[in-house]
Amino acid sequence: MSNEKIPYKIYLSEDELPKQWYNVRADMKKKPAPLLNPATLKPVTPEELSAVFCDELVKQELDETTPYIDIPEEILGFYKMYRPSPLVRAYCLEKALGTPAKIYYKFEGNNTSGSHKLNSAIAQAYYAKKQGLTGVTTETGAGQWGTALSMACSYFDLDCKVYMVKVSYEQKPFRREVMRTYGASVTPSPSMTTEVGRKILEEFPDTNGSLGCAISEAVEAATSNDGYRYVLGSVLSQVLLHQTVIGLETKTAMDKYGIKPDIIIGCAGGGSNLGGLIAPFMGEKLRGEADYRIIAVEPASCPSLTRGVYAYDFCDTGKVCPLQKMYTLGSGFMPSANHAGGLRYHGMSAILSELYDQKLMEAVSVEQTAVFEAAQKFARVEGILPAPESSHAIKTAIDEALKCKETGEEKTILFGLTGTGYFDMYAYAAYNDGKMGDYIPSDEELKKATDKLPHID
Amino acid sequence: MSNEKIPYKIYLSEDELPKQWYNVRADMKKKPAPLLNPATLKPVTPEELSAVFCDELVKQELDETTPYIDIPEEILGFYKMYRPSPLVRAYCLEKALGTPAKIYYKFEGNNTSGSHKLNSAIAQAYYAKKQGLTGVTTETGAGQWGTALSMACSYFDLDCKVYMVKVSYEQKPFRREVMRTYGASVTPSPSMTTEVGRKILEEFPDTNGSLGCAISEAVEAATSNDGYRYVLGSVLSQVLLHQTVIGLETKTAMDKYGIKPDIIIGCAGGGSNLGGLIAPFMGEKLRGEADYRIIAVEPASCPSLTRGVYAYDFCDTGKVCPLQKMYTLGSGFMPSANHAGGLRYHGMSAILSELYDQKLMEAVSVEQTAVFEAAQKFARVEGILPAPESSHAIKTAIDEALKCKETGEEKTILFGLTGTGYFDMYAYAAYNDGKMGDYIPSDEELKKATDKLPHID
Repeated sequence: MSNEKIPYKIYLSEDELPKQWYNVRADMKKKPAPLLNPATLKPVTPEELSAVFCDELVKQELDETTPYIDIPEEILGFYKMYRPSPLVRAYCLEKALGTPAKIYYKFEGNNTSGSHKLNSAIAQAYYAKKQGLTGVTTETGAGQWGTALSMACSYFDLDCKVYMVKVSYEQKPFRREVMRTYGASVTPSPSMTTEVGRKILEEFPDTNGSLGCAISEAVEAATSNDGYRYVLGSVLSQVLLHQTVIGLETKTAMDKYGIKPDIIIGCAGGGSNLGGLIAPFMGEKLRGEADYRIIAVEPASCPSLTRGVYAYDFCDTGKVCPLQKMYTLGSGFMPSANHAGGLRYHGMSAILSELYDQKLMEAVSVEQTAVFEAAQKFARVEGILPAPESSHAIKTAIDEALKCKETGEEKTILFGLTGTGYFDMYAYAAYNDGKMGDYIPSDEELKKATDKLPHID
Repeated sequence: MSNEKIPYKIYLSEDELPKQWYNVRADMKKKPAPLLNPATLKPVTPEELSAVFCDELVKQELDETTPYIDIPEEILGFYKMYRPSPLVRAYCLEKALGTPAKIYYKFEGNNTSGSHKLNSAIAQAYYAKKQGLTGVTTETGAGQWGTALSMACSYFDLDCKVYMVKVSYEQKPFRREVMRTYGASVTPSPSMTTEVGRKILEEFPDTNGSLGCAISEAVEAATSNDGYRYVLGSVLSQVLLHQTVIGLETKTAMDKYGIKPDIIIGCAGGGSNLGGLIAPFMGEKLRGEADYRIIAVEPASCPSLTRGVYAYDFCDTGKVCPLQKMYTLGSGFMPSANHAGGLRYHGMSAILSELYDQKLMEAVSVEQTAVFEAAQKFARVEGILPAPESSHAIKTAIDEALKCKETGEEKTILFGLTGTGYFDMYAYAAYNDGKMGDYIPSDEELKKATDKLPHID
């Protein structure tokens, strides 16, 4: 099909919605290293994980061989309220840049959570409900995951307790109110409500909080309450699995119009959006059927792939979660209070870490003010005000499109626009007022955190 | 087509996007009364209007006979970035209510302005640009129109000066930042920057501001600056014309699936969303081809249709705009600071006023806390957090669906979901905290304002 005929937005019909998630681990010859029990340093058993996570999610977490996993009807029903999401041809951005590149983005922001997080939230809430649980606990950074989970829990009438990273809780009071509107309880983290929170506050009374710390609190709140389990919005392999709905829709839409991306770009905090977007493309790459350049974009202030080490580490500050082999800055690393709360995690998905280590994908880091410059440019021509997190991908997509302008290459660039920035207006105000700074951790700072890694082979 | 096959969301293809707006006045036997020059009390001439509005928009404002007006290619190009908007079957709401009614809503919130306002903003910015103007001035209540206009002006590289109703400026600081991100300047109204603003502040130093007052300031700022014109987000017939894209898409989508609404519901502030949604259906009604029950929903705190008078009145507090025959509470009426800023206008579209007077549509008023109760119920089952304005329509749609539950009638209900409430979290917080009040003006208060009408036959 000729490019003249490609609409601004490609919407699949509901019939074309994926009926199964794709488990990319099934096509990986070398699998991610197993999760370890922090007490025994042996691979965790399903029984051990079941104290923290819902049974069905434990199964998904540990399943490395089943390539396709059915999406239950109830989840499909919820997906249909906001999916399929549009694949957008960025005609206006291409024109503004004067690039011969063809730019596409998969837009996940058209739902009240404002991001892709809802794709996994509804799955996790469903399995919790199915297991007969009372409720779930979780952490949230920017608030997108917490909002998504609140919506999902409200839909299935489950209790929802959210620990929100303190700096986001303060910077983003409106997200808190969205969560409350959907019936969730929200606590700033670190808090005095958990043992691990009290311990951290004693050591670092002025901390901004971090995802790692909020995770520890949420896990403690789940394991110390009957009828509750902990759910997580990123990093875990089960989350990447659910997020493959993004990539599967994208692939179907592109195939329909005979489009093949040369470069696929996504921002990477814990890795769920990127992992979900690239999954079916990576599958082809792993099976030797096609090749794609895949780029993870992370903030220069929290550069786990580009400056971290590939080693076993704790997923949380409190060291209660299983150990995971991943690219990490050290679970004690406290990222600066940058405005992309969703990208302030010290580690990275085990799947993406292994793929990166196998050189099947690249990574770049970008600085905050350059990211907001790209965000504003994008908003003014494409109409959508992007989330700071998503804008990392925009920045790199623009950079690649400008390279094409220099070389004259008509490359096809695909990036994930994970969400909207409607709840990030303090960040935009700082940018509008010229008051935004950049922070790049020093080698010494990074070394100090990774020196404390548990050193497991 | 059987109802089993109706998807959750009906998306038209870009090819099915309307190529023309529909001018409902062409099918009205009795037309709306002409606009009058406030100085001469004679019908305004195109020349007089051209001092305030762009030339092409003056033509559209005064055109009562052309049924279809072409949508320029440049506007269609912009529309394609966020349109066609989805027509949603509210399966989950139906289930939650246990009603045999079939509920549909046309959702206009999937764009950064968060509402339908963008449909007219882009048209008005386009005509201003085409005329070679430097910029435009406007007022905004809730901030949705200002945001929409900022986006449109940024797209066409036009200056944008926004006067924002003071109570909204203070309650919704984030909207201000969205407008600034798109390059607009934003001033709280009443302000000291205009003669009319200074005069109002002198008389009412503690005023919350009102749309009528902000309009006066924006008009003054336009007419006292070369290269500027004033643009308005509602009330005017040209705005209703642009908004017919909502109704035309809805009609096409419904026809495609063989759906015929029994009841059509929309919130009404100035009337542009309702006018746009009902236009093609009203056209059929006017031509005797079909019948529909059409309901305008307004806040009990600002009840122009249900408790106002049908008479000539000023559109603005400063009395600089043309006089319009409409249902009005009096241009001096100062509505309470309710949370639906977009519905705090003293008057109503001349077209809708005339249709209401001819009993071709009904009107009801609803109270604020009941509206937020409906909004929360809707959000929890349909996933979308609605704007307070739109929630007025939700409230009445739910009421009608519950009547069907009592009678067992399987009526088809269509309502306009004009926007999202992401920038209305203070209002939701007040509701969540049980601190929301209701305000219904007394007969004396209303009489006091309408006694000051200009009394023109």
